[in-house]
Amino acid sequence: MYLCAMNFSSKLLENAVDEFGRLPGIGNKTALRLVLHLLNQSEHDVARFTQTINLLKEKIQYCKECYNISDNDTCEICLSNKRDKSIICVVEDTRDVMAIENTNHYQGVYHVLGGLISPMDGIGPSDLKIEGLLERIRQGDVLEIILALSATMEGDTTIFYLYRKLKDLDVKISTIARGIAFGGELEYVDEITLGRSIQTRVPYERNIG
Amino acid sequence: MYLCAMNFSSKLLENAVDEFGRLPGIGNKTALRLVLHLLNQSEHDVARFTQTINLLKEKIQYCKECYNISDNDTCEICLSNKRDKSIICVVEDTRDVMAIENTNHYQGVYHVLGGLISPMDGIGPSDLKIEGLLERIRQGDVLEIILALSATMEGDTTIFYLYRKLKDLDVKISTIARGIAFGGELEYVDEITLGRSIQTRVPYERNIG
Repeated sequence: MYLCAMNFSSKLLENAVDEFGRLPGIGNKTALRLVLHLLNQSEHDVARFTQTINLLKEKIQYCKECYNISDNDTCEICLSNKRDKSIICVVEDTRDVMAIENTNHYQGVYHVLGGLISPMDGIGPSDLKIEGLLERIRQGDVLEIILALSATMEGDTTIFYLYRKLKDLDVKISTIARGIAFGGELEYVDEITLGRSIQTRVPYERNIG
Repeated sequence: MYLCAMNFSSKLLENAVDEFGRLPGIGNKTALRLVLHLLNQSEHDVARFTQTINLLKEKIQYCKECYNISDNDTCEICLSNKRDKSIICVVEDTRDVMAIENTNHYQGVYHVLGGLISPMDGIGPSDLKIEGLLERIRQGDVLEIILALSATMEGDTTIFYLYRKLKDLDVKISTIARGIAFGGELEYVDEITLGRSIQTRVPYERNIG
């Protein structure tokens, strides 16, 4: 790859591009495009942009039950009396909560770990909200824990760690089903997924519900 | 396309995602990823991010000669006595100046229009720094104007407008060469470019310099 050395005509511009370039997935060229876009906006619009971010960082709270991002000390899902508090779905972050909520297939509550165990990135179990999860289970009333984590090495490591912590507690432990996505064509599925989906095949009746 | 309605657990979060989602090329999912990344940074880092943007918007200046972004009232290129002030390269914005500077093939000076004529976006000639360009030419000393604008409808419209304004002034007008890119394979070149590159073919000697 040809790395373009950027010669900025302004130090202020270069600093702003550096800041945007630190965001995940934003390269220098995209950062420059975003900064020039902001520069073309009115002072009022730029001030609103930065104030909104500052306000988020200052005022954001995390639900004291499930650690999801919230504007109050308890989130709306944990406060709702329509949700089944006996089932806790363990997820990595708030994006997973949003994705599962969008399915309209889940009526239990959540527990947001705030990350996955990743020795490569220096993230260990103590960096995640695992103690809070154990505490919720020890208080009784919880019947099932669903581990809904990514099918990656970090996800599997975290599932294994949680399983060892949870297996002696009086709670059912399940993971979300893995297999071929709906609409997925067999020939494009990777070999591991395809092989495992044959090994873990289910009776036909269960897949037509 | 399936448009995912995002159910945010926090209004503060939603506002921040909205702000990022207004940036060009940033969809809602990317905006959420960027906002959650910022939320995971230290208060110090987030404050530096927003302060850098505010500072840019407050303190940025434009060169009074060529209207390029600058930290002073005249940019380094216009101040340099190594640059040939008799050739002015007309470009859309500061990114084009950076791209041409990176080639190391240009020793003249620039004129940054600040956009292209685009009736669809409500951008007319009066929104661009065209009067400043004419003023520079009227002061004498300028021998050649290079119109280095994008090969798009907006670029061509702007070139045509500038040509009509400039043709009666005592100055040579040229545009950058269009044709097949170096490394480009003929079969992948679009028909218009290929056809025009045959019509505007040049003697072999000129292409080996």
